[in-house]
Amino acid sequence: MSKDQLIALERELRGFPAPSGTLAERRAGFEMFSTRPPDPGVTVTEVTLGGVPALLVEPSTTTVGTVLHLHGGGYALGSARSGVALASALAHRAGASAHSLGYRLAPEHPFPAAVEDGLAAYRGLLDAGYAPDRVALTGESSGGGLALAVLLAARDADLPQPAAVVLMSPWVDLTLSGESLRTHEAVDPMNSAAGLAENAARYLDGADPADPAASPLLADLHGLPPLLVQVGAHDVLLDDATRLAARAAAADVDVTLEAVAGAPHVFQNFEGRIDEADRALDRAGRFLAEHLAR
Amino acid sequence: MSKDQLIALERELRGFPAPSGTLAERRAGFEMFSTRPPDPGVTVTEVTLGGVPALLVEPSTTTVGTVLHLHGGGYALGSARSGVALASALAHRAGASAHSLGYRLAPEHPFPAAVEDGLAAYRGLLDAGYAPDRVALTGESSGGGLALAVLLAARDADLPQPAAVVLMSPWVDLTLSGESLRTHEAVDPMNSAAGLAENAARYLDGADPADPAASPLLADLHGLPPLLVQVGAHDVLLDDATRLAARAAAADVDVTLEAVAGAPHVFQNFEGRIDEADRALDRAGRFLAEHLAR
Repeated sequence: MSKDQLIALERELRGFPAPSGTLAERRAGFEMFSTRPPDPGVTVTEVTLGGVPALLVEPSTTTVGTVLHLHGGGYALGSARSGVALASALAHRAGASAHSLGYRLAPEHPFPAAVEDGLAAYRGLLDAGYAPDRVALTGESSGGGLALAVLLAARDADLPQPAAVVLMSPWVDLTLSGESLRTHEAVDPMNSAAGLAENAARYLDGADPADPAASPLLADLHGLPPLLVQVGAHDVLLDDATRLAARAAAADVDVTLEAVAGAPHVFQNFEGRIDEADRALDRAGRFLAEHLAR
Repeated sequence: MSKDQLIALERELRGFPAPSGTLAERRAGFEMFSTRPPDPGVTVTEVTLGGVPALLVEPSTTTVGTVLHLHGGGYALGSARSGVALASALAHRAGASAHSLGYRLAPEHPFPAAVEDGLAAYRGLLDAGYAPDRVALTGESSGGGLALAVLLAARDADLPQPAAVVLMSPWVDLTLSGESLRTHEAVDPMNSAAGLAENAARYLDGADPADPAASPLLADLHGLPPLLVQVGAHDVLLDDATRLAARAAAADVDVTLEAVAGAPHVFQNFEGRIDEADRALDRAGRFLAEHLAR
């Protein structure tokens, strides 16, 4: 059943036309693909966090804290709005509110603009009175790498770390040194090394891809909070996730890696359609709830 | 609190005398260290599985299946009896029975005697009428590597795979190529590369350490059932766990890796004393229950 769902989804994803058109057209397409109505009973409000626009997602029930969510889109696509679906799915399950951040995008605002916005927003949450142990960071794809870069920037700025981090198919190595970029290109229906190289060049705008603020896989990870990394095994970015887990564990960080057989990039987007997505969101929600309530 | 528990435990473990004496004395010491009374309401019965002695652990409640547990002890120490505590802790939480296997030990019975016994026992469970999706394999330390070797032997013998596997601090690379053997020697209060080399030589008795049946990290892992790997980050065998997770994910296996900051080798043995042990056993029990009941 579940295996059949994955195979059907993979076939459909392969049928999608390759990304093309102007950046504006690609942004519009990504927005359509990513935007789903938030869960029933949830309200969505425009706010700013440290001067950065965000959408605040609030369930109708009492909450244990808030999730700062960083959307995906290769640092060039996506928005606070495109991040609402996953932010809301996680927050709802964790019994928390969520802030989906509209950080600045490349090429208009290259590296490190996104990291600066993420750090400003995190600082904004603390300034607004959230205790750090009632805040979690979450991110998908490039937003996963960004979440990690924000944590490291917070550490370097002597801010306290949040309670936990959840990264979905994080892109953490802009030097593109993962073996799976080659070994998994045939099984990945969505991403390719060439596409990622294009995104990296656009974001870096000449900066060193090995800068740990751009490629947090290469950073000293000591002192990070408990980390959950979820990844599909049919993803060219698989090795970003497995290497991140190994590096975090070696730096004495509490880390959980969940690799899901047969699943594509950010498979959690297919909630309600593939059982793996619902189960992964349930586990991530439980992880967030445990750490926010501790 | 929990951090204090880990620090106190690590101090105590460091105070233990280094293993010494005859093999018989070391076996007796390991037995004392590992054997704890089974959980209340549990019965323990001597049985054989495919001709191999085992202890059957049964909770008083209805069960969803059974766990075949392979104890640790570097392939030279330990017994069905020393494995009962963890087998019982897992089975109790999973709502399953458990079989703790008394496989043959080195140097009296070197590689591949233990693998043969594990395979015979697994086949014995199937012959006794257990459906493979109602059986899970679990193992600690060398028993974790052995569990994996048994799964691969079962695959090669065209036996169906069980529902799931849980490995606690598995030793899966007898070539001792993990970086953490060097980088983590100072933080590991229990194991050393030298001690592991001694165990490997005793078990292999001249066989090639790179034989995938002795070092399943090096095997083709395609087709394995969902795998949970738990490891403490203060373990020279950390990289065995992280590399196994990466290799399994690359082979499209469902895999969860949980690395616990500050925790020593098979920290689950310290149930009731460090919170991390209880939490890890709870998660492992839930993982087993989900897969046995699916």
